[in-house]
Amino acid sequence: MRLVLAAVLAMAGAASAAYAGNCWPPTAQLWPLPATCTFGSGSARLPASCSDLAFKVDAPAGPGLATVNAAVARLQTALFGKPCSAAESAAAGLSTVRISVASTSEWPPRRPGSTIEAYTLDVSEAEAQVAANSTAGALHALRTLSQLLAPSASGASIDGLPLRVVDVPFYGHRGIMLDTARHFLPLDTIQRTVRAAAASGMNALHLHLTDAQSFPLEVPSLPLLAEKGAYAASARYSPKDLADLTSYAGDFGVTIIPEVDMPGHAYSFGLGYPNSTANCPGYAHNINNIPLNPAVQFTADLVQDVLGALAAAFPGELVHIGGDEVVLGCWSEDASVQRFMKENGWTSTTQVLQFFVTQADAIVEALPAGDGRDAVARALGAGRRRPVHWQDLFDNGVKVSPNSVYQVWRSLDDVAPITAAGFDVVASAEDSGWYLNCGFNTGCAYSSWEQVYQTNIEAAVAPGAKGKLLGGEAVLFGEFANAPAVDAQLWPRAAAIAERLWVPTAVNNTDVALPRLTAHACRLQAMGVGSAPTGPGWCDEAAFVPFA
Amino acid sequence: MRLVLAAVLAMAGAASAAYAGNCWPPTAQLWPLPATCTFGSGSARLPASCSDLAFKVDAPAGPGLATVNAAVARLQTALFGKPCSAAESAAAGLSTVRISVASTSEWPPRRPGSTIEAYTLDVSEAEAQVAANSTAGALHALRTLSQLLAPSASGASIDGLPLRVVDVPFYGHRGIMLDTARHFLPLDTIQRTVRAAAASGMNALHLHLTDAQSFPLEVPSLPLLAEKGAYAASARYSPKDLADLTSYAGDFGVTIIPEVDMPGHAYSFGLGYPNSTANCPGYAHNINNIPLNPAVQFTADLVQDVLGALAAAFPGELVHIGGDEVVLGCWSEDASVQRFMKENGWTSTTQVLQFFVTQADAIVEALPAGDGRDAVARALGAGRRRPVHWQDLFDNGVKVSPNSVYQVWRSLDDVAPITAAGFDVVASAEDSGWYLNCGFNTGCAYSSWEQVYQTNIEAAVAPGAKGKLLGGEAVLFGEFANAPAVDAQLWPRAAAIAERLWVPTAVNNTDVALPRLTAHACRLQAMGVGSAPTGPGWCDEAAFVPFA
Repeated sequence: MRLVLAAVLAMAGAASAAYAGNCWPPTAQLWPLPATCTFGSGSARLPASCSDLAFKVDAPAGPGLATVNAAVARLQTALFGKPCSAAESAAAGLSTVRISVASTSEWPPRRPGSTIEAYTLDVSEAEAQVAANSTAGALHALRTLSQLLAPSASGASIDGLPLRVVDVPFYGHRGIMLDTARHFLPLDTIQRTVRAAAASGMNALHLHLTDAQSFPLEVPSLPLLAEKGAYAASARYSPKDLADLTSYAGDFGVTIIPEVDMPGHAYSFGLGYPNSTANCPGYAHNINNIPLNPAVQFTADLVQDVLGALAAAFPGELVHIGGDEVVLGCWSEDASVQRFMKENGWTSTTQVLQFFVTQADAIVEALPAGDGRDAVARALGAGRRRPVHWQDLFDNGVKVSPNSVYQVWRSLDDVAPITAAGFDVVASAEDSGWYLNCGFNTGCAYSSWEQVYQTNIEAAVAPGAKGKLLGGEAVLFGEFANAPAVDAQLWPRAAAIAERLWVPTAVNNTDVALPRLTAHACRLQAMGVGSAPTGPGWCDEAAFVPFA
Repeated sequence: MRLVLAAVLAMAGAASAAYAGNCWPPTAQLWPLPATCTFGSGSARLPASCSDLAFKVDAPAGPGLATVNAAVARLQTALFGKPCSAAESAAAGLSTVRISVASTSEWPPRRPGSTIEAYTLDVSEAEAQVAANSTAGALHALRTLSQLLAPSASGASIDGLPLRVVDVPFYGHRGIMLDTARHFLPLDTIQRTVRAAAASGMNALHLHLTDAQSFPLEVPSLPLLAEKGAYAASARYSPKDLADLTSYAGDFGVTIIPEVDMPGHAYSFGLGYPNSTANCPGYAHNINNIPLNPAVQFTADLVQDVLGALAAAFPGELVHIGGDEVVLGCWSEDASVQRFMKENGWTSTTQVLQFFVTQADAIVEALPAGDGRDAVARALGAGRRRPVHWQDLFDNGVKVSPNSVYQVWRSLDDVAPITAAGFDVVASAEDSGWYLNCGFNTGCAYSSWEQVYQTNIEAAVAPGAKGKLLGGEAVLFGEFANAPAVDAQLWPRAAAIAERLWVPTAVNNTDVALPRLTAHACRLQAMGVGSAPTGPGWCDEAAFVPFA
């Protein structure tokens, strides 16, 4: 397994134009495209009955073992309408799926991605074999297997045998950002997005939980935050909701990155706790102008409690604390902030921002590490939580924890200076089209799937800093994305971004991708996800195994 | 009633800036805004029980009577969860709704709109009274009443009593166009669109049934059209489907305008009947280039049968036969067309187009008039079917039947010459933003609800030809609008167009409209329509009576 992995990594580094052709199976429409594949000309039929197809999981005990078993049950359900009891098959045709997982200890996932996701899949006419280092790799292998299968009432079939897929994603962080503050999104909308993300090879869901408009997050020690800040009693996330969501996402190999945006975009904090936000009559005409008030101890305690609630609900390494678009002018009008500045001998409100961020970063890094145990994170010495910031803090010259991750949203051009400064970066630049909310009502223009697919994020990295680009996110801010609008605004374009992050940069031919993405949009529809299409056409939903 | 109607029309002609203020009830968010209203300061509560609210319909026998009764049952269902048996109420509060309809003979609706839609609604603390000339007017009155009611478990309440609404739409033709050829749209998607259109004051649904990509329309005498031309057996409309749809739409006061696009956009005819389309190898690389072949008698017979099938399914006056974007060059390559031109002494392929259109117009005008009986149409001497054409025929100098309606799609500037030439026009110009499919993947840009709301179609009409502008349509071509994407692409923008067509041109303040449209988008959601929002926010769906 180690050898295979090394070979895959060498190959991925030397991406070639022939790459895509290598993974073009005779009939199946894979999404995302695996790193390398070889196909023969044989085919096989799976048994028509649940009890004649044996799934044999060979994995050490660990928290991920139940996840692998749950994924097997989902695949069985997608194929046969129900999970199967254990079968020792003697049926003709492909009757055994062996799944070997080296380690299941790194679960639930604390950090998106990395080479820990590699897998191999070998399918002969009698047997399918999965080998993975990790739970995540096993889930990816089962996804690829499901996409190779053509279902039918008399048993699914598979072509191109013998086949071998040796696969690893190019970037470790492959995510979607949903905004639950401009519109509350019910749990089923978020769960559907998790499934669609997993079905497309993504592994991260960034939840922009709060903003000026609402505060749906229940924080037990600060009950008024949600009581006053949420749109309605039915528009809140309870601690149990969030724990269930973590568990749900974990089953699909998706890590949740929670965000509470601060110190800007904080008006909704003040609905429950007016002392926590700054007071600036000259800016009050627009709720987007109101930041937290870092001058009072109450705010520091509140930030501690809010981030503690996130840590309790989400085991992930990354904790996003916003930092974008802070309207510093508001602090110039607030008497307590002005007093605080004078006490500290500060002359600029940027120093107030620096104070706040230093404090918040320290709170994040002192948070309990959560239940997740991430072998890679531990190996990197990154056993603790890491703050994520929008790029604005860097732009404003604020110093953040060197362990921070920056999310670039303005322009891909901004990736170079931030990576050059030594920070890990997640790319979701509006000017690369990855703000999928663009075009629906606001200033920025809609980008087609072809545009977002051909975005070259690799070229944006500073020379010598390639490893600093962790990956990217498809962003859907929610001003015009309520629950009914989410699916068709995200899909299939988020899947185009997913493959962009999975395959090497040189694999970017949209003519080659089109039939596969067209099929994948139908696959998502077969899973109950209301994907938009790639163009005129018709979905035969029965042609897909709706698995993630 | 006649006097009231005349007064309304005089008022609508002299639209004033004060108009909107007149119809601003104390609490309810009406959409569209009625022509005139007066409100008092009282309020009333409706009974909590179905059996304590008496609906008394006073209308002569006629096909529309059942429609009025069905609408009453829908309103009861929206209020009480079920239709009620007849009640003679003695309950306290508002306990009687009297509905007086002068004529119910003009049903199902054959032609959208006109002053026949006028109504008055008077509500006192004890009784609501509707007076309408027609079935359509009664449906509009019930819609306005439903929007004035605030539901609650202890009985809906109504404010602003006594109130009086005297209303008539500004334009008679207020429609939506759906494209069932680029993506097949299931009947429930179309029905949902009918309900949302009716809830927004619209009265027409234009179905772009066929195009190059598919032919979902079953024509009994030409079975191969749908067998070969539809995407799949499950992606067809049977004669029964269409008859049911006509009946369903009629119950909501919506007239269906069927379109079979020809002679261009006709590739899908040729899948079943290759002889019907022209043969031009130089153009065959793009299916959008292929027109019908007017040189063979087979095509004339086919057009006769296809239009006969439309007439059998749809009783409406307007039959849309396309005429847009005919690629004349294809005919220059087709041997049979060339021979036909020589036989007729024609030197230009435009003469072939003229031949086809003259023939098709004559077929439309000779179609049986259908079941509908439209008093207004009869009064206008328009008892027969009328062809509708896209503006391209006018642009190409083709002569069409003087009884034709032109649909303007390129630019509002094109309304003037076409109305000046004496044709009735339906406006849906792309440059006015009324192509709601724009912005999602193609060349044209997305338009906000504010833009489509402020479109001034009245100013586009030629001097002295005001009556020639029948109204307009919100158009949703289907290249990127599959069933999951339809609702959020249409709504709430189609509702903004609906009010634009209902109220005088001067009533166009978007700040005034915003809270009402925001509420209306929530009302649509409460009806199960996946409307996008007007901006950040939350829908309390329980605040609406989900009636159309």
